[in-house]
Order: sequence, then structure tokens, then C-alpha cells
Amino acid sequence: MPLIIGKSRIEALSDGVFAIAMTLLVLKLEVPAVMHHSSDEAMLQELLEMTPVFMTYVVTFMIAGGFWFLHQLTFHFIRQVDSVLVWINVIFLMLVSLLPFSCGLMSHLLVHPVTQLFYYGNQLAIAILLNIHWQYAKRAGLIQGSESKDMFVLTFRAGQTVAVFAACLITALWVPIFSWVPIPVILLGGLIVEWSRRGS
Amino acid sequence: MPLIIGKSRIEALSDGVFAIAMTLLVLKLEVPAVMHHSSDEAMLQELLEMTPVFMTYVVTFMIAGGFWFLHQLTFHFIRQVDSVLVWINVIFLMLVSLLPFSCGLMSHLLVHPVTQLFYYGNQLAIAILLNIHWQYAKRAGLIQGSESKDMFVLTFRAGQTVAVFAACLITALWVPIFSWVPIPVILLGGLIVEWSRRGS
Amino acid sequence: MPLIIGKSRIEALSDGVFAIAMTLLVLKLEVPAVMHHSSDEAMLQELLEMTPVFMTYVVTFMIAGGFWFLHQLTFHFIRQVDSVLVWINVIFLMLVSLLPFSCGLMSHLLVHPVTQLFYYGNQLAIAILLNIHWQYAKRAGLIQGSESKDMFVLTFRAGQTVAVFAACLITALWVPIFSWVPIPVILLGGLIVEWSRRGS
Amino acid sequence: MPLIIGKSRIEALSDGVFAIAMTLLVLKLEVPAVMHHSSDEAMLQELLEMTPVFMTYVVTFMIAGGFWFLHQLTFHFIRQVDSVLVWINVIFLMLVSLLPFSCGLMSHLLVHPVTQLFYYGNQLAIAILLNIHWQYAKRAGLIQGSESKDMFVLTFRAGQTVAVFAACLITALWVPIFSWVPIPVILLGGLIVEWSRRGS
Repeated sequence: MPLIIGKSRIEALSDGVFAIAMTLLVLKLEVPAVMHHSSDEAMLQELLEMTPVFMTYVVTFMIAGGFWFLHQLTFHFIRQVDSVLVWINVIFLMLVSLLPFSCGLMSHLLVHPVTQLFYYGNQLAIAILLNIHWQYAKRAGLIQGSESKDMFVLTFRAGQTVAVFAACLITALWVPIFSWVPIPVILLGGLIVEWSRRGS
Repeated sequence: MPLIIGKSRIEALSDGVFAIAMTLLVLKLEVPAVMHHSSDEAMLQELLEMTPVFMTYVVTFMIAGGFWFLHQLTFHFIRQVDSVLVWINVIFLMLVSLLPFSCGLMSHLLVHPVTQLFYYGNQLAIAILLNIHWQYAKRAGLIQGSESKDMFVLTFRAGQTVAVFAACLITALWVPIFSWVPIPVILLGGLIVEWSRRGS
Repeated sequence: MPLIIGKSRIEALSDGVFAIAMTLLVLKLEVPAVMHHSSDEAMLQELLEMTPVFMTYVVTFMIAGGFWFLHQLTFHFIRQVDSVLVWINVIFLMLVSLLPFSCGLMSHLLVHPVTQLFYYGNQLAIAILLNIHWQYAKRAGLIQGSESKDMFVLTFRAGQTVAVFAACLITALWVPIFSWVPIPVILLGGLIVEWSRRGS
Repeated sequence: MPLIIGKSRIEALSDGVFAIAMTLLVLKLEVPAVMHHSSDEAMLQELLEMTPVFMTYVVTFMIAGGFWFLHQLTFHFIRQVDSVLVWINVIFLMLVSLLPFSCGLMSHLLVHPVTQLFYYGNQLAIAILLNIHWQYAKRAGLIQGSESKDMFVLTFRAGQTVAVFAACLITALWVPIFSWVPIPVILLGGLIVEWSRRGS
């Protein structure tokens, strides 16, 4: 169907899938079943042992928030959608809704290479689909107005996500314990750029 | 109540139910509990053994995405709703929200005839309700403008889904192992038609 | 805060809670864990034994759909909301989101009086809150235009839900096995009235 | 990106995360598995033993509803968002989606000091982020119109939530059994103020 339709419904489905996938992450945080009648120290200990699980939760939530933000920004420029773009988005959302599984795998075995390859592979696949979505929208003439500086920045940011998770994947193959490094580096880098841009 | 009301709320409920049903599919992917301390090979093996579960996940997500797309397209033409259409949609959404159960059943016993009958039965029921919804909307005069070529294509597509899942059901009765065949055939067929139409 | 605000956000939260509560009902349908390697007959048998669970699922989904429909219709007439109406709605939604628990309780022990009292008690509480919500909105002058025939029908319908579930509760106390009767009687009655009205 | 964008998408994500987090609370209410064939008294007993779990459910749902209400009110005044505000909101929503875990922890061990510190710590963190969000929006000029009396009341209310949960946290350290007291006191206080304001 070469039908050109409005974008509000695919936006609503995306917001729904992101909100659910992000909130389901918390189901991986299981309340320790055996903590009844424990002393304060034993209980604090149990919660502290959950630190890697909490860290994975926080990191995955923030990454998903970042993908949601970039995806939402593309729709700031997209005027309308066609069926090809809808299908690209369905695949994109399928990969997003896989995040609670990847996150669960990761929080069980934080520095296992197979776990990390699966986790970063999922993130990389999301990043690639985000770029396919954005490039297709631009080439199929579904964009509002002409190429602007804001659009260029967005294209750069979307491309950056591929670089981040490809870097994580490669790092995971060699030094699994430092595979997280590219993420905070880029996130902090992005925020610094943000603030310096606001200042100028 | 012969009351004619706006369509935005039933659209929002539909997007919500679809988003949740599609995202809950992932809960059927359980992180193997016994994978601690396993060697890389053992762990890869465990993930590879999940292949049928992943395949069922991907296929069910894509089918649900397809139903969402067709359902959303009908609302592109529907101007307003009455209470009969709302109730048809509630039954439609009930069948959609049954998908995580059907998918879970399927991913446990991929080639079992009873499982397959239940799974394709669920999909067929969704397809039938989609057609009832669309036919009712057209006959009750809830459509915007007159019958167009786009509407005809949509009617054809909606009818096609009934054919696909009836074909799957019948195949499942005789050769369960090939019961999937009608789905990719139609999906790929649809995409090819899509692209050839864009070309002409 | 005597602040009068727009209604779109409370509508969105309501659609979200309803969509999720309705879709979570399916999590009560557990895929029988021990069905591997069973014969076709054994497996059919296992699915057939789930009949009361399926019935509870279908009935609860349809009731929730009905409450959603009535709640949505009130917002067809409500122009704006104040903070009292928001809090009435938060309590209403809390009772709606309790449905997966009531439904799970019911599907375990279908004809147990305690189960039934809890289940119908939950539905009755939802019905009462729906009426408080609607009466408050009318009295606080949050309604669009003057009292119409459509609004009168809606008031009657909302009142009817209290009658239905009060009847179910009382029946459950004496003949638990027939406690369902008031629901289909009213649902079918409503549909018949619907169609006869359309005809006249 | 100093890009100023519309607020509808972040509102939709917020409504989604709140609706899901609030509805997931119910998953902590587990249907007692061993209640088959019990006498009426034994079953009533089992449900009564769930009282602390129900109380935690009700209180957490109402608190979440309150945060949703205040967050939604800020967007009544916010005209548009920038990327900093989006990230503040992503962190805010991460803390909101942690509520089902905190609530599950609390309902297991109601008067345990470690549990309570975690629970009130979560609520306090949400309250603090709400204030950062609101203060940032006001200072970055993302507000519609000038500072009004309604905005002042909202600022006061948002600040109040920090006071409530800081008070709960401190009480929990000394008399865990009375740590709930500040919440109903403030909630009832708020409602009384509400009604007296409506009267004048």
C-alpha cells in the first residue's frame, strides 16, 4: 500500500512499547525470598549483593530512555509515514521489547562474554534499526521542511549510538570487565557538549 | 445507546493493549536459571536451545504488528464509532491480549498439533474479528468519504489474513512441521507487491 | 487547588491502566508446565481443564471493557476536571488495577463463596466509584452543555452496573454456583435494548 | 541539542510509565497457592493475613497517583521541553518504575528498618526529581505565561512531598512502626485545605 498516513498512531504504539519495556525491567529485580527474620546487617548485605542487578537496571533504563528520545526526535521532523516505515518501526520496537530479556541475562552474569555479546548485540541492533528508520524517512520524502542544522545533529547522534554499541561489543570480546566504558564516556561527552552548546 | 462518539479513546485503548500484549511476549523468554558458572560453550548452547522460543517470539511479534497496522489503517478511514463497534473492538482486543498465552504454548511445544491448533485458532479469530470490525464500520456509515481504492486494498488485505491463518490451521492438521509456511509466503508476497506498486 | 485543568491526561492514564489491567489478566493463564511429551488426548484434556480459567478471563475482560466504555462515555460529556475528580479517578483506577488479582483468585476457586465475595466486591466497588465520579462531575459543573437524553441513558447505565454486581454479591451468598447469572442477563438485555433502539 | 520540542511525547511516555508501574503493583499480590479445598474460615483467614500487603498496595498506588497528579500539573504550565528536561524526566520515570520493587520489599517486611529506608528513599528520590524538574522548567523559560498563584501553590505542593518523605525516612530510623504517620497526615491535610479553599 503506497498509502501515506498520519504519524500519531505509530507514535502512540512506540511510546507504549518503550514505557512497558522500560517498566518491565524492574521485574528482573526480585525481592529476595529468604529475607524474612534476618538481622538488619544480613538484609543490608542482601540488598548490597543486588548492586550489579541495580546497576544493570539503571544503565539499561537510561539507554532505553536515550533511544526513546532519539526516536521521538526523528518524529519531530517526520510529517507522515508509509507502510515501509511502519514495518521498520515494528522491527525496531521488537528489538526494544527484547530489552527486559537482555537486561535479565546481563544482571545474572555481568561479565560473561556470551551475556555481554547478547546484550550489546541487542543494543547495536536497536541502534542500526534507528538509523535505517531515519535514513528511510529522509529518502522517502516523509520529512517536514528541508534539511536543517537540527536534523544534521540528530543524524550525527543516531550514528553515534551505532559507534557506541559496536565499541562495547568489541571491548566485550577482549576485556569484558571494561565493556561498559564506551557508554558513560559517550553519555557524559554528550551532556558536556549539550551544556557547552547552551553556553555559546 | 445509538450514540455516535469520537474515535480517539478506542484508538488509545487499542494502542495500549497491542503495545502491552506485544511486550509481554518477552516474558515467555526466561533467562535460564542454571546458567551460572557455565563455560562459554555451555552457555552458547543454552541460548541456541532457545532458538524455537526466539523464533516464536519474532513471528508472533511481527504478526501482532501486522494486525495492529491493519487495525490502525481501518481507523484512518473510520470517522467515528458507535457502541456496537466498541464492543466488536473489545472482543478483538481480548483475542489480541490472549497472544502471550498462545505464544507461550507454542514456544513450549512447537510442532504439537494441539498447540498449533490453539495458536492458529487464536490468530484466525483475531483475523475474523478484524474483518467483522471493518465490514460493520463500512455498513453502519461510520466511514469518512466514499469507498476509495485504498479502502478496497485494505479490505483485500484484511480478508487475506483470514486466508493465511485458515491455511495455517489446515496445514497444522496434516503436516504440523510445515504449518508456518503460509505466513512467510504471504508476508514476503505482500512486501514484494508493496515494492512493485511503489515502482509503478 | 481549585484549579480547573484539561481532561486529556487523566484520559490517557485511564486508558493506560485499563489496557494494562485487561492485558495482565492473561498472565493468570499459565501454560501447563508438565505437558511435554504428552499424547494429543492428554494435552487436549489439560487445555479443557483450563475451561473455568478461560471463562473467568473472558468474563472479566468483557466486564472491564464495559467499565472502560462507560468511563470513556462520561468523558465524552465532561469538559474539564478539578483535583477532586482526579482523586476519585485515582481510586477508581486502583480498583480497576486490582482486577488481575480478583480474576486470579476467581479462576482458582470458581464457586468458593469467599472468592466470589471478593471478586464481586471488587466489581461493585468499581461500579460505585464510577457513579461517584459521574455524579460529582455533573454537580461540580464540569459537564459540557446541559443535561441531554444521552446523559440520562448514561446515568441509567452506570446505575445499572451497581445493581448487577450487588445482585451477583447477594446471589453468591446463597447460591454461589448461579452467581454469574445477573451478568449475562444484563449484558444481553443491554444489547437487545441497543438493537431495538437502533431499529426504532 | 538546544532544540526546543513539543511536550506531547514526554507526556505520553510519563502516562505510560505511571500507568504500568501502578498496575504492576498488583503483581505483588499473589493468589495464595495452597488455598484449594480450604474451609471458608481458613480462606478468609488467608485473605486477612494479606492485609499488610493490601495496605502497602493501596498506599503505594495513592502516593504514585499523587506524584502523577503533581507531575501532570507541571505540564499544565510547561509549554515545551528541551533535552535537559527530557533527561530529568527519564531519571524521574526510572525512579517511578522502581516502585513495584520497593512496594514488594515493603509488603514482605512491613516494619523492618532496612525495608522502610529503601521504600521511603525511593519516594524521597522521586519527590526530589519532581522538584528539580519543576525548578528547571521555570528557570529555563519553558513555562507558559508568567508566575501565577496556581503555579505558586504547585511549587508549594511539590516541596511538601520532599518534606513528607524526609519525615517518613527519619521516623523510620527511630520508630519504624509509626513511619507511615506523616503520609495520611499530609494527605488528609491537603484534602481539608482543598475543600476549605473551594468553600471560600
